[in-house]
Amino acid sequence: MHTQFFTVNYQSTKTMARLGTINTQHGQIQTPVFMPVGTQATVKTMSPRELYELGAEIILSNTYHLYLRPGHDLVAEAGGLHRFMNWNRPILTDSGGFQVFSLAPLRKITEEGVEFRSHLDGSKRFLSPEKSIQIQMALGADIIMAFDECAPYPADREYVKRSKDLTTRWARRCQAAHSRRGQALFGIIQGGVYPDLRRESAAELLELDFPGYGIGGLSVGEPKELMYEVLEHLIPVMPVDKPRYLMGVGSPDCLIEGVMRGVDMFDCVWPTRLARHGMAITRRGNLPVRDNPYSRDFRPLEEGCTCYTCQNFTRAYIRHLIKAKEVLGIRLTTIHNLAFLIRLMEDIRQAIAEERLEEFRNEFLSEYGRIR
Amino acid sequence: MHTQFFTVNYQSTKTMARLGTINTQHGQIQTPVFMPVGTQATVKTMSPRELYELGAEIILSNTYHLYLRPGHDLVAEAGGLHRFMNWNRPILTDSGGFQVFSLAPLRKITEEGVEFRSHLDGSKRFLSPEKSIQIQMALGADIIMAFDECAPYPADREYVKRSKDLTTRWARRCQAAHSRRGQALFGIIQGGVYPDLRRESAAELLELDFPGYGIGGLSVGEPKELMYEVLEHLIPVMPVDKPRYLMGVGSPDCLIEGVMRGVDMFDCVWPTRLARHGMAITRRGNLPVRDNPYSRDFRPLEEGCTCYTCQNFTRAYIRHLIKAKEVLGIRLTTIHNLAFLIRLMEDIRQAIAEERLEEFRNEFLSEYGRIR
Repeated sequence: MHTQFFTVNYQSTKTMARLGTINTQHGQIQTPVFMPVGTQATVKTMSPRELYELGAEIILSNTYHLYLRPGHDLVAEAGGLHRFMNWNRPILTDSGGFQVFSLAPLRKITEEGVEFRSHLDGSKRFLSPEKSIQIQMALGADIIMAFDECAPYPADREYVKRSKDLTTRWARRCQAAHSRRGQALFGIIQGGVYPDLRRESAAELLELDFPGYGIGGLSVGEPKELMYEVLEHLIPVMPVDKPRYLMGVGSPDCLIEGVMRGVDMFDCVWPTRLARHGMAITRRGNLPVRDNPYSRDFRPLEEGCTCYTCQNFTRAYIRHLIKAKEVLGIRLTTIHNLAFLIRLMEDIRQAIAEERLEEFRNEFLSEYGRIR
Repeated sequence: MHTQFFTVNYQSTKTMARLGTINTQHGQIQTPVFMPVGTQATVKTMSPRELYELGAEIILSNTYHLYLRPGHDLVAEAGGLHRFMNWNRPILTDSGGFQVFSLAPLRKITEEGVEFRSHLDGSKRFLSPEKSIQIQMALGADIIMAFDECAPYPADREYVKRSKDLTTRWARRCQAAHSRRGQALFGIIQGGVYPDLRRESAAELLELDFPGYGIGGLSVGEPKELMYEVLEHLIPVMPVDKPRYLMGVGSPDCLIEGVMRGVDMFDCVWPTRLARHGMAITRRGNLPVRDNPYSRDFRPLEEGCTCYTCQNFTRAYIRHLIKAKEVLGIRLTTIHNLAFLIRLMEDIRQAIAEERLEEFRNEFLSEYGRIR
């Protein structure tokens, strides 16, 4: 019998939040979920074993980066991305659209696709809907994304509309190019901060009946309130039986607010990047453990945290490692930051099941940001 | 009852090699042993858990580095080095002598000690026998080393003799300054490549009856054959009931040749440093896994190796990580390199017990260095 790709197990009666399960060939994912980002086929500083232990159920990797280095053909030769990086749970690959627009210099957008220069060696490259899908089929992730144009913020309505229309036409081409069984292709809804364009984008992509939908072009510089507003307009017109993936979002407050508005999936480089900057995520906000006040602080990054880092090491030691440029400092902080977000999602799921997500949100936000 | 610090469990009848046990408050060490180096209170890129799993029974850390950063007072406040870095097995600290002479600029040596500038911030610092012992008592390692002057190679006889004489006088002062119970202070035999000076140094230090002896000033640029020759002259005049520690030596051939000449302990940054340069230690020699020929090599670093790295990852993946400057690449190579040397010492101990160390040596060396 055919296993359902996505099942809603519980719909909250008080908010748009819901509990779900995504089924893939590499296992199940409980939603709402936060996906750690492994841009270059590795979640920075982490081993797969550590990620399993943290309870990561799915990670994200990047078409753009893997296309440039080591190349999708090499990854395919290795037996696909799961085998290449020895990660046996689900993977989602981004299409490369966002990265081309945020990283690559000298890009030229045409109906056909995007010409750009590699940020690594300046070589001329070309990505199109077909090419992105071809690469993602070679990588073999469980969930892949349509190649989109991600409009910047701010951008005028005309630009955003043209960009949204192009994204829709590209989504059709992606779907036509996609043929790998057992791999789910998600469409990406664009339309910037314009509610009517978002609804248009959604309507056009719903016609294509993707198994899931990304919400792109948010968390690109707009105020958080505006992002929440877009979600409130958009999510009610999205299908209830498909996962909704808010791309590039990962701060604790946005995760909670996103879930309350009906989002099922999130990803962000934030927890790993923050660690590289010597910052730890805590319930009271971001702790700059790299700084001098922590040099003789013999408490864990967060009291009560059950992660390997907090069970075994002090702020003073981690600060020493970071100041001495020792990799273990960033590793330990990364473990904690990912543990924090993965546990937060567990707490959120529990709160949904017990219909107390609003209370959870209020309690969490009353403390968050109150550091020092 | 008082537990013996060092016990020789078996003396080979065919070579100078022997099997021993060192007892410390943090556990036993089987000798001959290789000690991974954790210069700044961390074995680069490794967590304590990984080191336990590799079977590391003791690690080394550095007085010079910890004195400058984070400071021995801070480490003492944390409860000592074991607690600071959360390493519950034995630790040996070097005295800072070697580092002052190899790292610090503008040093001035007097009878009293060494004035130098910190390689970190240029601040003026002073280390003496008393100061080094004071720092090492604060750090609280299980085994600490006397503060010595390590003569360079080549150096003329007169210089080496004066340096050796100073080292002996400093050793007396170290012993007088040392008062921490449960912590063993080793003397360091100097004398360069001059057999008579080595014997003089040994005789002078034996009078002080240290619980163990370092052999310093070797592996500083002299040919390996010359180092072996010095060991052959020196070790017969060293006590049989005290551990003999050849400082700064760690390549597989030197470990085997050292053991055959009666050495019990070794340390070297080589396996961890080699990993940072993208090189893996194998039975056939050093594999430059960072290089292009390995980009599509889907074999492990070493066929048959049982370490986490070789059981789970390919050369192609590790090369990709190293090229992409991803920390995991160096981590995985470090795990393998340390696993290689720790297993080599296990094999050596087994070969001693079975009186086939010479055969083991010949077999090992016939393959080692035969890469590609």
